[in-house]
Amino acid sequence: MKIERLTKGLSLKRSVENGTQEQRDAVIGIISSVRKKGDSALHEWTRKFDGAELSELQVSSLEIDEAADSISSEMADVIKEAAENIRSFHTKQLRNSWMTTDGTGTLLGQKVTPLDSVGVYVPGGKAAYPSSVLMNVIPARTAGVKRIVMVTPPDRDGKLPAGVLAAAKIAGVDEIYKVGGAQAVAALAYGTETISPVDKIVGPGNIYVALAKREVFGDVDIDMIAGPSEIAILADETAIASEVAADLLSQAEHDERASSVLITTSAELAEGVSKEVEKQLSALPKEPIARSSIKDFGRIYVAETMEAAVEAVNDIAPEHLEVMTENPIELLGQIRHAGAIFLGRYSSEPVGDYFAGPNHVLPTNGTARFSSPLNVEDFQKKSSVIMYSKQAFGQNAAKIAAFARLEGLEAHARAIESRLGE
Amino acid sequence: MKIERLTKGLSLKRSVENGTQEQRDAVIGIISSVRKKGDSALHEWTRKFDGAELSELQVSSLEIDEAADSISSEMADVIKEAAENIRSFHTKQLRNSWMTTDGTGTLLGQKVTPLDSVGVYVPGGKAAYPSSVLMNVIPARTAGVKRIVMVTPPDRDGKLPAGVLAAAKIAGVDEIYKVGGAQAVAALAYGTETISPVDKIVGPGNIYVALAKREVFGDVDIDMIAGPSEIAILADETAIASEVAADLLSQAEHDERASSVLITTSAELAEGVSKEVEKQLSALPKEPIARSSIKDFGRIYVAETMEAAVEAVNDIAPEHLEVMTENPIELLGQIRHAGAIFLGRYSSEPVGDYFAGPNHVLPTNGTARFSSPLNVEDFQKKSSVIMYSKQAFGQNAAKIAAFARLEGLEAHARAIESRLGE
Repeated sequence: MKIERLTKGLSLKRSVENGTQEQRDAVIGIISSVRKKGDSALHEWTRKFDGAELSELQVSSLEIDEAADSISSEMADVIKEAAENIRSFHTKQLRNSWMTTDGTGTLLGQKVTPLDSVGVYVPGGKAAYPSSVLMNVIPARTAGVKRIVMVTPPDRDGKLPAGVLAAAKIAGVDEIYKVGGAQAVAALAYGTETISPVDKIVGPGNIYVALAKREVFGDVDIDMIAGPSEIAILADETAIASEVAADLLSQAEHDERASSVLITTSAELAEGVSKEVEKQLSALPKEPIARSSIKDFGRIYVAETMEAAVEAVNDIAPEHLEVMTENPIELLGQIRHAGAIFLGRYSSEPVGDYFAGPNHVLPTNGTARFSSPLNVEDFQKKSSVIMYSKQAFGQNAAKIAAFARLEGLEAHARAIESRLGE
Repeated sequence: MKIERLTKGLSLKRSVENGTQEQRDAVIGIISSVRKKGDSALHEWTRKFDGAELSELQVSSLEIDEAADSISSEMADVIKEAAENIRSFHTKQLRNSWMTTDGTGTLLGQKVTPLDSVGVYVPGGKAAYPSSVLMNVIPARTAGVKRIVMVTPPDRDGKLPAGVLAAAKIAGVDEIYKVGGAQAVAALAYGTETISPVDKIVGPGNIYVALAKREVFGDVDIDMIAGPSEIAILADETAIASEVAADLLSQAEHDERASSVLITTSAELAEGVSKEVEKQLSALPKEPIARSSIKDFGRIYVAETMEAAVEAVNDIAPEHLEVMTENPIELLGQIRHAGAIFLGRYSSEPVGDYFAGPNHVLPTNGTARFSSPLNVEDFQKKSSVIMYSKQAFGQNAAKIAAFARLEGLEAHARAIESRLGE
């Protein structure tokens, strides 16, 4: 693994995937066919892209129960315990509506309301992760969303992966449909005979899914478009090279475009990690992917001071940050930009991917500068509440009318003054 | 004003303004020129679009002070009192970082951090509203954003409106630049010699500004793209026709595309409001705009029951909702979708536009189904914090590794197991 001296203004930012013109045109065509032809378009695209001939789009409760029963009871218990941890952490994020009142009798506040309905996209094939089902569904359920719909592409036999169905049952999904790609996004946004539309679509997908989400945004809400996964590790001489290397590789196995970066004040650790990465790489089942990722997007930076190292972390704004230093909590206050911050030796990143409770859907590609992990508030919205009293109105009517006239909005001023008659 | 019987499935949703291909190409060209040529591109576009030859892009503190002094002291006091009300309401929205700990010594939490820097776009000409400066700047300042930059196009003499500069001074803007349009958005997103880039861009603008915000989204964050203004009024027989009519017209004067809707259980009120609207319209300075808006997008619906009327409100998800019924707070629990809810006779909508404290930047075009008013949290973001204890790790390592292997992610499992050596 390449070792460099840390320089200022580090950035791992890569250009956002906007797709080719051909891909964009294809997505627009698919969406328009679903809006026009509904279910029959869904069947047609599923035949074409997934090679499956479906009699029913919706997964039956029998299919769900059979899938759930096919998982070993030990594994089911692990998924349930993870779900419970996720639920517990996200329940702590819940907001109440609030109000403030004053001596004049005026009430001001914010009313917090869950979204009516949410659609969760789950990719097919190898990227059909049960953990991703939990992480997207549980915050919506916790927020109080009444209707949660899952869509995911079937295999050629029209089946869905048992792990995904089991996780959906544990997380509490209301409806599951065998449909993927841009056609699934279109169905969620605009509805068909079988699938009623939703208010927000979340979950990862391939470039067609990402482009379709962009296209329907505004008619419905969407989550962020995720980029390749990233980890930055901030370490001093107390970190253990084999553990640091293993954590870097756990990102690298995801994707050739994943990025794994170590920033350390210890030249000795840098050397040790570089060697360990090479050693562990050779023994990995996904060696080709991980090797390519480490070669293109893996770096070790040696910093002069811990201050410079922390500033580099803020410049990168990584999706995942591990802090493996003697006293990691001392550095927490200086870290401004990171999706999730893992402190200390026992907070290896997979602890958060699967089990601890915080969400694993995190801002990538430097967007941690301005975005947050998926959370309960992504599934709630607020309405301002204004109940002005007669007394407050009387005290302030002239001021409000004057402000409106300063802006040339006479009808606004007259709306106020229409109440002053009596 | 047209009166109809209420039917099910009411929607005022209009197609989102995506601009013409020509406009999109123009915006892409402008952004690319600013990225390449920096300040000199800004001067060039300002010459072309605003007819102004500027020696300096940045507004000097002398210019700001002179503008602030040119406002009458009564008006300045009104703006200051409004600013104080807005600050007070938004301060109540502030979140703390929080944590949870358990008996194993594990700490989990969310760290709340303000954005580093924010850009506020303020339109020029007649839409240069001081109230809009307050509503966009104060929540960012309250959130703890360190650097707030305002951009707004100059007039032909290179000047900015005094009211806008005075409001910027009161709200506490750090830097003001005389630049508007897509070129201003590009400068905020990517920076020039004079203007350092920001992390998020908020504020209303014309179609070029909206298209430019869409274009830079992802590199920086943006607020929602606002559509035309809307009001829905829910009223029973206790409402006073002249007041309801005046409130409908206060929206209609904004824009030919603004929409003003009354939903009432009283046929008598419907008749009265229809007549009052006609009477008041003729006396308005902005009569042509308001008349066109009322004709195309103004409607009175008579509902059989209050339940049906409330359900229609939820279908519309209006930007502004006024409830003028005998006991408006009784209905609050049934209202799920509205940007701001004004309860009772003395909560005329301009009370919220200018003075009460809640934000006047609200979700339009039915997006109140899934969006919130601009608020302090739009200028903060969260990082998950995970500090797993040795004990928790020991208890759960095997489960986490098993979950990773279920998903075929061996390097994840090994990252966990690398800590089990000792």
